[in-house]
Amino acid sequence: MIPASRPVRDSYAETTHLVLPNDTNTLGNLFGGRLLEWLDINSAISSHRHSKRAVVTIAVNNVSFDRPIRLGDFVTIRSHVSRAFGTSMEVWSDVWVEDQQTGEKIPCNSAMYTFVAVDNTGHPIKVPTALPESEEEKVRFEGALRRRQLRLILAGKMKPNEATELKRLFE
Amino acid sequence: MIPASRPVRDSYAETTHLVLPNDTNTLGNLFGGRLLEWLDINSAISSHRHSKRAVVTIAVNNVSFDRPIRLGDFVTIRSHVSRAFGTSMEVWSDVWVEDQQTGEKIPCNSAMYTFVAVDNTGHPIKVPTALPESEEEKVRFEGALRRRQLRLILAGKMKPNEATELKRLFE
Amino acid sequence: MIPASRPVRDSYAETTHLVLPNDTNTLGNLFGGRLLEWLDINSAISSHRHSKRAVVTIAVNNVSFDRPIRLGDFVTIRSHVSRAFGTSMEVWSDVWVEDQQTGEKIPCNSAMYTFVAVDNTGHPIKVPTALPESEEEKVRFEGALRRRQLRLILAGKMKPNEATELKRLFE
Amino acid sequence: MIPASRPVRDSYAETTHLVLPNDTNTLGNLFGGRLLEWLDINSAISSHRHSKRAVVTIAVNNVSFDRPIRLGDFVTIRSHVSRAFGTSMEVWSDVWVEDQQTGEKIPCNSAMYTFVAVDNTGHPIKVPTALPESEEEKVRFEGALRRRQLRLILAGKMKPNEATELKRLFE
Amino acid sequence: MIPASRPVRDSYAETTHLVLPNDTNTLGNLFGGRLLEWLDINSAISSHRHSKRAVVTIAVNNVSFDRPIRLGDFVTIRSHVSRAFGTSMEVWSDVWVEDQQTGEKIPCNSAMYTFVAVDNTGHPIKVPTALPESEEEKVRFEGALRRRQLRLILAGKMKPNEATELKRLFE
Amino acid sequence: MIPASRPVRDSYAETTHLVLPNDTNTLGNLFGGRLLEWLDINSAISSHRHSKRAVVTIAVNNVSFDRPIRLGDFVTIRSHVSRAFGTSMEVWSDVWVEDQQTGEKIPCNSAMYTFVAVDNTGHPIKVPTALPESEEEKVRFEGALRRRQLRLILAGKMKPNEATELKRLFE
Repeated sequence: MIPASRPVRDSYAETTHLVLPNDTNTLGNLFGGRLLEWLDINSAISSHRHSKRAVVTIAVNNVSFDRPIRLGDFVTIRSHVSRAFGTSMEVWSDVWVEDQQTGEKIPCNSAMYTFVAVDNTGHPIKVPTALPESEEEKVRFEGALRRRQLRLILAGKMKPNEATELKRLFE
Repeated sequence: MIPASRPVRDSYAETTHLVLPNDTNTLGNLFGGRLLEWLDINSAISSHRHSKRAVVTIAVNNVSFDRPIRLGDFVTIRSHVSRAFGTSMEVWSDVWVEDQQTGEKIPCNSAMYTFVAVDNTGHPIKVPTALPESEEEKVRFEGALRRRQLRLILAGKMKPNEATELKRLFE
Repeated sequence: MIPASRPVRDSYAETTHLVLPNDTNTLGNLFGGRLLEWLDINSAISSHRHSKRAVVTIAVNNVSFDRPIRLGDFVTIRSHVSRAFGTSMEVWSDVWVEDQQTGEKIPCNSAMYTFVAVDNTGHPIKVPTALPESEEEKVRFEGALRRRQLRLILAGKMKPNEATELKRLFE
Repeated sequence: MIPASRPVRDSYAETTHLVLPNDTNTLGNLFGGRLLEWLDINSAISSHRHSKRAVVTIAVNNVSFDRPIRLGDFVTIRSHVSRAFGTSMEVWSDVWVEDQQTGEKIPCNSAMYTFVAVDNTGHPIKVPTALPESEEEKVRFEGALRRRQLRLILAGKMKPNEATELKRLFE
Repeated sequence: MIPASRPVRDSYAETTHLVLPNDTNTLGNLFGGRLLEWLDINSAISSHRHSKRAVVTIAVNNVSFDRPIRLGDFVTIRSHVSRAFGTSMEVWSDVWVEDQQTGEKIPCNSAMYTFVAVDNTGHPIKVPTALPESEEEKVRFEGALRRRQLRLILAGKMKPNEATELKRLFE
Repeated sequence: MIPASRPVRDSYAETTHLVLPNDTNTLGNLFGGRLLEWLDINSAISSHRHSKRAVVTIAVNNVSFDRPIRLGDFVTIRSHVSRAFGTSMEVWSDVWVEDQQTGEKIPCNSAMYTFVAVDNTGHPIKVPTALPESEEEKVRFEGALRRRQLRLILAGKMKPNEATELKRLFE
């Protein structure tokens, strides 16, 4: 019933938030924790669309906040599964705000979260592999193995010299 | 007025949350986005205690969720600045739950966030260096440079071959 | 700077929500008030994209809830400006949930809200007319005048015999 | 046990809210979605008092927002069942704010929601008819049939020429 | 403009809440902190109606929770100023739930909060005296002085032997 | 399994909150109801650490708010069980804010809540007695009996002339 693979395009999820007073810190900017929460929920939707299973966040690999987002801004988050590894999925999210006069989309930051699919008893369960199609999807698919090795090393679950893909970066 | 350095111990911040229905996903566990938000706020408190300035999240380096946290659990987050780099600070947070019968502290996960201190106009401003004292603080201080190089590479702000500290991992 | 007209397609806004415990009533379904709030925010985004101005809700014309939405469902709201009248805009929103096994989109309900664009002092300001392109957009554009007359009659701001468009329904 | 009819007066429900920062939009006014949520909850209380059953929102017939409500205002919502139709109830709500110096009640808007009563399995169940007593209650009771026909036509569940009560408006 | 006195009846404020999942503890009951927050807001409304000023909570004198309130219950809070002392007001609140079949009002608990009225700079400002009319209002008015002495002793602002009214209790 | 007594020091719980816009009243200060909610949760954690049982708030004995807390302040709440009486526990909480330049802890107020431990069916269950060790803990332990008598008198559950401990205050 669950196919062996699924195109990346099936997992896209998009959400636009309006930054309300409740979402801001004392400088009047969107506070980081709120954006992390929004990213988590949108990424969960993508990984569910890919796996058709309950999903659980297991890691935030890397998020950087490159520019402040202001009260009243419209923040759009667009997520997709970038690669699947057995029971886990890396989800890539792009965040942008719209220029309020021109409507131009201004990129703010990217984020990569990792999810696992679980069955009714909470145990990890295999998910379809992800098939990238566009150029961008292929680049992100390629990088995912490197990021995964990095995550496992940081979590003490892989030895650096086993991270074949990552090592090549430094050669 | 702001000293040139400050011991790590001055930046400890601890918070205990009770997991309420509003914090859970459909499996009855604390959902990842909520924990990321709590980590962000507690880390902000630590970096403020170190810098005595308004602080802004600029990156989440790495968070892994190793075990589910349940509705009704008491979740404690303990954060401290692990190292400062000019205007930025890495904040290390440990998360644990308490066994409800014995009170034993069960470690759940760790998280590293990066903050910058800003002045009234929102521009980055120099912070004191952080002085580690305990063994654990020293280990975390040492690792911070490696994690910083990693973060900058992932964000495309440093070339891998400039990451001297990180390269040694793979030698 | 603000053009005289704008295609309807420029105003589309889409958001997907995950129904969490906090969003449910005591039957375990999404409660009506929460969906009305989500519709309001998504409609505000559409009307902002059309007008590039601050916008204010002035009416909810008609919303019907045709099927219950359950805890854990993914709810997608897609909104667009269906027609503009001077300073006001009717925004049409479609709501659907996804079948959790097949991913099939199951329509739940539609909603029509009316917004006005305002300037910095809070006074209404003219917006571009809306240009429908698809068949569906044209049908909704046509119906908007009828719904507007209805809304004005219900609010006591128009006499039934002035509602030329509406009267034709009953002939 | 449930009586065949119940006076309208038994279903009155009143709630006063203080508009906090969390309830406002970027203009500093109560945002529409929040008021719609408050109206939904207060209307649910009225329809529960009439039916003594679990109730579910099935429609928002018409709400207009005639004047902005400000941060710090006290907003009072007063709801009552205006008429019952088999398993459904129209609930009428009046909203006002208080002048902060004189305490005078300033009407802001009215709203009409429709609820159905459901049994434990979620199926609609018959409710008592509503007996209006005051002049105002009688006027609202009379208008409810017209509004119901309108709602059914808009939802495509009634043909305009069957809406006998509504047609008379245009004669 | 502010009168020298005002009848207690002018300060009544009533709010009905529906207990949603977000308001419950892990036993499925309304958690104490949420009820304390609701009591604070409703009491603030009463003290504002009495003083026509911004008001600030300065004390919670005594609240006891005599019976659990369940998810799905309708909780009504009714507050009034029981007595004014210069710049401060004691507000008495009664809390009850409704029997879901019979509609009977079941008393749950009472609470007494103290507020002060403040001017634009945040300084305390004199309020009208409160005139009790009903028997119940008179009893509460009488008791307020005793409760005030008690509060001041507990806060270390009055010596027990100055509490003339309170001492009589023990004679 | 549950010991007959437990040192007070085992029950300490500390939480630091950052005051966000959502927590403030219209004067820009932390509103009383929010602090009461935070105090309730932190006190619940302390009483759980003492009893290792589900706990339920049964009373707020006395809270006074001595100084306003501002948007952006860091508020720390530190709670401990001050004394146990059969199935109930008095929890004492201290609240302070930090001076944002010097980091100095500025005391704001104290609060005393009473909790009971309950078993799975919601019935009260015996808890260990609390053993004070520091001078401060001993003073608070001593005062607890007096506060308990006061609370029972105010709730009409004890006659003033039975309150032997309290009477001595007035001799």
